[in-house]
Amino acid sequence: MADEGLEALISPQSVAVVGASPKQATVGYVLFENMANRFKGKAYFVNPKYDVVEMWGKQFKFYKSISEIDDKIDVVVVAVPAQVVPQVLEEAGRKGAKAAIIISSGFAEVGNKELEDEVKAVAKSYGMRVLGPNCIGVYNAFTGFDTVFLPAERAGRPPAGPLALISQSGAVAASIMDWTARRNIGLSVVVNYGNKADVGDVELLRHFAEDEKIRVVTIYIEGFKYPGEAKRFLEVAGEVSKKKPVIAYKAGRSSAAQRAVKSHTAALAGSYEMYRALFRQAGIIEASNLREMFDMAKALAMQPLPKGNRVLVITDSGGMGIQAVDMLEGLGLEVPEIPASIQRELRRELLPFAATTNPVDVTGSATDQHYKVALEALLPTAFFDMALVVTLMQVPGLTQNLAEYIIDAKRLRKPIVVVNFGGSKMVQDFTKALEDAEIPTYSTPDRAAKALWALYEYAKIRGVVRT
Amino acid sequence: MADEGLEALISPQSVAVVGASPKQATVGYVLFENMANRFKGKAYFVNPKYDVVEMWGKQFKFYKSISEIDDKIDVVVVAVPAQVVPQVLEEAGRKGAKAAIIISSGFAEVGNKELEDEVKAVAKSYGMRVLGPNCIGVYNAFTGFDTVFLPAERAGRPPAGPLALISQSGAVAASIMDWTARRNIGLSVVVNYGNKADVGDVELLRHFAEDEKIRVVTIYIEGFKYPGEAKRFLEVAGEVSKKKPVIAYKAGRSSAAQRAVKSHTAALAGSYEMYRALFRQAGIIEASNLREMFDMAKALAMQPLPKGNRVLVITDSGGMGIQAVDMLEGLGLEVPEIPASIQRELRRELLPFAATTNPVDVTGSATDQHYKVALEALLPTAFFDMALVVTLMQVPGLTQNLAEYIIDAKRLRKPIVVVNFGGSKMVQDFTKALEDAEIPTYSTPDRAAKALWALYEYAKIRGVVRT
Repeated sequence: MADEGLEALISPQSVAVVGASPKQATVGYVLFENMANRFKGKAYFVNPKYDVVEMWGKQFKFYKSISEIDDKIDVVVVAVPAQVVPQVLEEAGRKGAKAAIIISSGFAEVGNKELEDEVKAVAKSYGMRVLGPNCIGVYNAFTGFDTVFLPAERAGRPPAGPLALISQSGAVAASIMDWTARRNIGLSVVVNYGNKADVGDVELLRHFAEDEKIRVVTIYIEGFKYPGEAKRFLEVAGEVSKKKPVIAYKAGRSSAAQRAVKSHTAALAGSYEMYRALFRQAGIIEASNLREMFDMAKALAMQPLPKGNRVLVITDSGGMGIQAVDMLEGLGLEVPEIPASIQRELRRELLPFAATTNPVDVTGSATDQHYKVALEALLPTAFFDMALVVTLMQVPGLTQNLAEYIIDAKRLRKPIVVVNFGGSKMVQDFTKALEDAEIPTYSTPDRAAKALWALYEYAKIRGVVRT
Repeated sequence: MADEGLEALISPQSVAVVGASPKQATVGYVLFENMANRFKGKAYFVNPKYDVVEMWGKQFKFYKSISEIDDKIDVVVVAVPAQVVPQVLEEAGRKGAKAAIIISSGFAEVGNKELEDEVKAVAKSYGMRVLGPNCIGVYNAFTGFDTVFLPAERAGRPPAGPLALISQSGAVAASIMDWTARRNIGLSVVVNYGNKADVGDVELLRHFAEDEKIRVVTIYIEGFKYPGEAKRFLEVAGEVSKKKPVIAYKAGRSSAAQRAVKSHTAALAGSYEMYRALFRQAGIIEASNLREMFDMAKALAMQPLPKGNRVLVITDSGGMGIQAVDMLEGLGLEVPEIPASIQRELRRELLPFAATTNPVDVTGSATDQHYKVALEALLPTAFFDMALVVTLMQVPGLTQNLAEYIIDAKRLRKPIVVVNFGGSKMVQDFTKALEDAEIPTYSTPDRAAKALWALYEYAKIRGVVRT
């Protein structure tokens, strides 16, 4: 069951923004703008400098303090100078707020540990959960709750969808939001915990495990901070990964990088090998960079799990087929031969110079129909667990109908990923048709292969692989 | 000096298109359309079915045969049924054409080796060079010479620029064109040799070595075909790589992949290790996928070579800095510490919580000026050979002026690459400003690190590394 404090942090129904401001190009302004225009719950703005603000054709009442607000408040968003924060938390506590998101910096990260301890003590005395300080907080595409103080021109907001991100770095979180927004990747909830005075990876992971709308959890981590954190993380992640896939990217592998981690987040970097072992034990899938984390997340959110590691490759480019096989085998997946009897059948329906081995090369002269024939003759058989389909749409005989044939094969409940390299409108339309139907597409074979690998890894973690 | 036959193949001044057609959605139509509208030289169209064709508001005379054309012809482009090709080549030879590009398929690739041998014999008897058969031929952005029979809606045409591509696969070549076009990468010349009856990698490599406008040659190769080819390739590539960078991506690394190579191109796949050793000996830089090939090519075309392997990292995101260090050290580049005296100086000018170690973390509160200070204090010193600059433009204090500061550092003649993750208009404008000034940008630290690695590798090949 969901934790009330965490729920208030991530999906509040009412929020007080302390430090909201009508002065453009300030943190308080972006928070005001976010909450006034896009938050679907109730937003109250606190700043003693203002009474009533006219903006966007509407009037907004500004409160002198939280106590003035005549409504219950789930979460208080705090963007005031550091030294005033304990006092604001006192008010929030007295008001009965369940949680606070402290955007303000000037705490432990600049050596002011006492002030951070004071904040923790106040929050604890009222039973409030705290996110931050020194964080960008929460972005929630479902409810429009958005404490990211960077305007959308700088940091795009991704559309609602099945992914969540927990990020130790605020700037990395913002850049991921901007990147996923541009690529239309459904990243619904993003949380950055900054100094981690209270809530961190462990609590967030547990929260997302319970959230039905989240199908895959991604984590950007630099290092743990407190003794015992690794152990708690292992316990919780081990539970969560039995319910839904968790993918982590750990920065800081080399010695110089670990020096930088220490300087950046005062985290106990630990050895990279320690983290790898921890991830493996916890059933977490490890990504080797941010792009790959979302490549894998997309597949895990969209596709069923395979029962084994045998991949059917169909391609209209011998060259791309070869690249796919290179990558698949390099990742420990199998690209088995096709039985001679099926090859004979295939030969009757494909072009005379098509290759009926695996990869099946329908050649650059292929039509949509050739893909359909190959998919339908092979993927349903007991010889294959999943398919990687290369569709270079640059060749003359292919049309948008091909998307329908591939989408139709979803009924077989075996994972399918598509490689679609290029940039023309035709390629873009084809990509959109597939992704709208939850067939993940990738620009190059290495990325598609890694996505299938992630599906297989998670199938092993979930114990659904045929033995 | 340039070979006359190769010159005629790649940069002809006059061309006869045999099999040109006004019938839309045919190969002959796309060739007609390309040459009639975009070729800057003289184009003649041969097809006995037509006399005069009105199209695009103009009149085009169609010739019955090549011999009718009252002008010299450099190259004949052949798109007629396979069995007619030898006869067309006879005519082309009698006309004195220096070269022929045979688009038609139906030769050795479908087992019809005799017909291909006949074509070779005819061409040889007239001293004509042949590209193909079964190829997409040549795309030349400088002159508009374009035998790629795929319309631009399917396969975009990249802009003129310093790169050339030699591709063993036609479909891969077309998809690379489409991909580079969309990304505005200056890929001027693309050649696909199909069955390689005559001209192949070796001759093309030698040709591009002499072409002043080409600064970097990229090669997509699946495998050599003829005995002795590897030896000739090694000799020629060894010479060329002393003049300009050559980057190769070899498909077909695993055993299943090699099976597929054999089926696809009837090439002697050889072991992957054999090719790797060959590349190394020839001074060729190896890419591990197509995207990486162009990531490296961009850097090699735009940036000077480093004198050593020590990289300065400047970042506004500790997390991204850490990722960069991971990647750089993993590739054998150094990320050395900054002398304490310089750190003291830096500390006076950067923010109090900035990190003055390497990576220099100007933090998410940085301004353009902080980057300028760090770049100017460090990159000119004897401690660094090149720089990787991470600019997450999502943070609030950065503006387009930052591009000017980075561009200004070009005067130091040390390589600079930039990591720019995201998708907002601001990120796009910033990227464009940098790339227009020949500072290569990459979306993630791993790609930027690999680009610096390629510069260092080529510096070693050219012997400019300080010892």
